[in-house]
Amino acid sequence: MADSGWPGCAKSLKGVILDMCGVLYDSGEGDGVAIPGSIEAVKKLKASDLLLRFCTNETQATRETFVAKLQRLGFDISVSEVFSPAPAAVAVLKERGLRPHLLVYDGLIPEFDSVNKANPNCVVIGDAAEKFSYQNLNEAFRVLIGLEKPVLFSLGQGRYYKETDGLKLDVGVYMKALEYACDLKAEVIGKPSPTFFQSVLNDMGLQPHEALMIGDDLVNDVGGAQHCGMKGVQVRTGKYRPCDERHPTVTADGTVDNLAQAVDMILNQRH
Amino acid sequence: MADSGWPGCAKSLKGVILDMCGVLYDSGEGDGVAIPGSIEAVKKLKASDLLLRFCTNETQATRETFVAKLQRLGFDISVSEVFSPAPAAVAVLKERGLRPHLLVYDGLIPEFDSVNKANPNCVVIGDAAEKFSYQNLNEAFRVLIGLEKPVLFSLGQGRYYKETDGLKLDVGVYMKALEYACDLKAEVIGKPSPTFFQSVLNDMGLQPHEALMIGDDLVNDVGGAQHCGMKGVQVRTGKYRPCDERHPTVTADGTVDNLAQAVDMILNQRH
Repeated sequence: MADSGWPGCAKSLKGVILDMCGVLYDSGEGDGVAIPGSIEAVKKLKASDLLLRFCTNETQATRETFVAKLQRLGFDISVSEVFSPAPAAVAVLKERGLRPHLLVYDGLIPEFDSVNKANPNCVVIGDAAEKFSYQNLNEAFRVLIGLEKPVLFSLGQGRYYKETDGLKLDVGVYMKALEYACDLKAEVIGKPSPTFFQSVLNDMGLQPHEALMIGDDLVNDVGGAQHCGMKGVQVRTGKYRPCDERHPTVTADGTVDNLAQAVDMILNQRH
Repeated sequence: MADSGWPGCAKSLKGVILDMCGVLYDSGEGDGVAIPGSIEAVKKLKASDLLLRFCTNETQATRETFVAKLQRLGFDISVSEVFSPAPAAVAVLKERGLRPHLLVYDGLIPEFDSVNKANPNCVVIGDAAEKFSYQNLNEAFRVLIGLEKPVLFSLGQGRYYKETDGLKLDVGVYMKALEYACDLKAEVIGKPSPTFFQSVLNDMGLQPHEALMIGDDLVNDVGGAQHCGMKGVQVRTGKYRPCDERHPTVTADGTVDNLAQAVDMILNQRH
């Protein structure tokens, strides 16, 4: 059964999905820094017969701004290859006729330009960072508690992330805060939501078993992908911690030092 | 069994414990306002043969400042009769040799004057209101995540409270946020912690069945007291909502319009 495990499964793969922060680059001051070997690894994947998509829970900037940053770092990447929670949220809002109160980073607001935000009947929170003030959280809370059927969307459910100057609280923490305040359950848009992974697979025209997810977040990247029927490989960069390799509920199909090693192993299997 | 229920149980009572905000007064701009009949009701209890204590989860001011406000509103009350979470927390910190990082309202800080706060090995959060900024919450998070055995104390676990200008998020919401961020369970000091109620009973020298709690918060006042073996009566003032009277898990021993009515019913039973 070597072919069904890692890296044997690479023989029958048709596509690869890459997480971005912690796999391609480390965030921080300015544009952050590319992780050694990652720029070349993306080039090799693009030169191969594999389909490639990028899948991020980044919600501090529009996809356009975000992709421009990656391009400045040296990555061969375009907006149409990138899946992020905000455009997925916009689709859900329109489909369900919902008008959001936004608690998101200023840089993300243009993603919601096409959405009616008057007289809000739901709340959308993203990684708002400094905008998670008491006043702003209280405002979002008052919108929710004033609704007959409060609906809260959270763009991801991360606990925290690492920037070059230290750990930062992520959106999931504020999702839990509002869930408790209003006694409700948020709808998560982004990883690890199965709907989100499925939208990437649909775009590639692939079945789950034909795709592999590579990420640094064991639960949201690897576990989320596995939950959808994909393989999931974890890199030992970004937010990886050694204790991930003995996690009680999620076991990666493979663990590699970094994206460069993962890509070399995949391509070696296919030659 | 009329004597074991409400108000029959009042015949055998030896003491009464009163919640403060929402029972004695409504908070808001300045000192807030006394709830009609409450000043007189406290006087009647003090003139009776019943022991009386006050029990609050107020953590925005020292007990001294808080009691002075109540006295200005017209209440006959002294500091030694009031039980609040901060002094209880100080006792726990000293007993366990813990040095807190404080995320509390400025007005509460003097309560912790006698505690060593250098090189913190735990975090204490209270109702910090505007001080619950992203930066301050992140700072508390970094202290916790940097500890080998992170310990978080929460002064209460309320979801929100009502001020004259609207609903405000309470400390419990930020407790849940930090619990999720650090994957831990906070220790709650204050109502509805059984330890907290027991410390009031100890001070009165009473057994639980000899005391009655009167509060506006069904879960934290009434449910918490009942959990300790006391009777619990809810007033229809403060944060009372009609749906409290059909709550899935907590049923008050009695529900009354306000403190004045509760006290009249108690004293009538005893004549």
